[in-house]
Amino acid sequence: MTPLRPYKKDGETSYTLGAFPTMELLRCRPDLAETVYLHGEFEDSAGIAELCRELGIPVVPDAGRAIARVSPKENVYVAGVFRKFESELISDAPHLVLDHPGDMGNLGTILRTAAGFGVKDVAVIPPAADRFAPRAVRASMGALFRLRTCSYASWEDYAADFPSREVYTFMLDGAVELSTSTRPRSRAFSMVFGNEGTGLAPEYASRGTAVFIPQTKDVDSLNLPVAAAIGMFILTRGAE
Amino acid sequence: MTPLRPYKKDGETSYTLGAFPTMELLRCRPDLAETVYLHGEFEDSAGIAELCRELGIPVVPDAGRAIARVSPKENVYVAGVFRKFESELISDAPHLVLDHPGDMGNLGTILRTAAGFGVKDVAVIPPAADRFAPRAVRASMGALFRLRTCSYASWEDYAADFPSREVYTFMLDGAVELSTSTRPRSRAFSMVFGNEGTGLAPEYASRGTAVFIPQTKDVDSLNLPVAAAIGMFILTRGAE
Repeated sequence: MTPLRPYKKDGETSYTLGAFPTMELLRCRPDLAETVYLHGEFEDSAGIAELCRELGIPVVPDAGRAIARVSPKENVYVAGVFRKFESELISDAPHLVLDHPGDMGNLGTILRTAAGFGVKDVAVIPPAADRFAPRAVRASMGALFRLRTCSYASWEDYAADFPSREVYTFMLDGAVELSTSTRPRSRAFSMVFGNEGTGLAPEYASRGTAVFIPQTKDVDSLNLPVAAAIGMFILTRGAE
Repeated sequence: MTPLRPYKKDGETSYTLGAFPTMELLRCRPDLAETVYLHGEFEDSAGIAELCRELGIPVVPDAGRAIARVSPKENVYVAGVFRKFESELISDAPHLVLDHPGDMGNLGTILRTAAGFGVKDVAVIPPAADRFAPRAVRASMGALFRLRTCSYASWEDYAADFPSREVYTFMLDGAVELSTSTRPRSRAFSMVFGNEGTGLAPEYASRGTAVFIPQTKDVDSLNLPVAAAIGMFILTRGAE
């Protein structure tokens, strides 16, 4: 039984909050699940307790107080402690590369969208928002557990592991307008997005096809999850 | 001079927080701006104080305390009090219709995206998140001031004002897959999105073309700002 303690960025575990992300953990990555905490008033319509028994994962019942300690502001009825993990990305598949994503909520939303568009391999280049933080896990709706995610120290490190791919770098001053005609020739392509405030550094323009999403002058930019969603939607259609 | 008081949903005024949304207010809707508050340490590189003088809008200098009272958690250096407003939507233009949007941050993000894709007319059907709340205004990055937004008591009320338009209702079980071939024939079309948790009520299926955004079974749904962004991006391209 792993205790449910306030999250630490440098710790080895984190936790899901809420029934949906906890079910995603149990369904997709039961190997990572350590302990599930249930509130005494939780109506377990999804059968979480039974699933845990089948999987041999300890359940702590009547854990309302323990859950409230890590989620004081919200009424949460389920929490699942899991071990953090790094995955190897698959070469013959679309990649999402996030360079310096700054916001946990945005990062979670982007992971949810990636799972929704079948982009299962995600590289993250730090400094980056912590994808294992409970807020990010929750924003992802548990999609974190459906993806292979991996940290790379730099673009060079990532590119060394995955050479000769089609690379799309999303930049406000990109040379090519994103459209269905910019779609990749094979499944081995990478979509690269930068930080919310600063975007990608200028050197990314020569690291692949620098694309821009057509938008009016009425906004400074699109928000990052919106830009990433549109990029993934357009470039993955037909990539299956 | 209008005092800077904690926001009230039923009040007549609200306020921008931050230099960017405040500049948007002053540039786009100076007629609504009542008073601008500046922190004593604010470096006014954008020339907000001068713009206010030109526009005849009162400026309160050294207002750090007043700003901190309405934004206790963040370092905000500029706030602009403005009168709430309803606009008449333009008939011969794409409309976004938001039925029961539930989250202020999402609503603001959607308004920002709408401005980015040239969708300047937005109808909101309550109960709805308050688009004038400071959090929503901030998430919109001030795009609220670039749009015509209007509340309608019901879909019927909206449809009575705008009959014979092409209507697209976004539903997970929609009959038609969203693609470039579903684009509208004229600029007079409406894109309708439902609540984050519950989507659109079933009766919307017969109120227009019920479209779905193709997505994997790995997610329950896309998040609302992401779905709205993809819908607007695909349907407005070529609508200009």
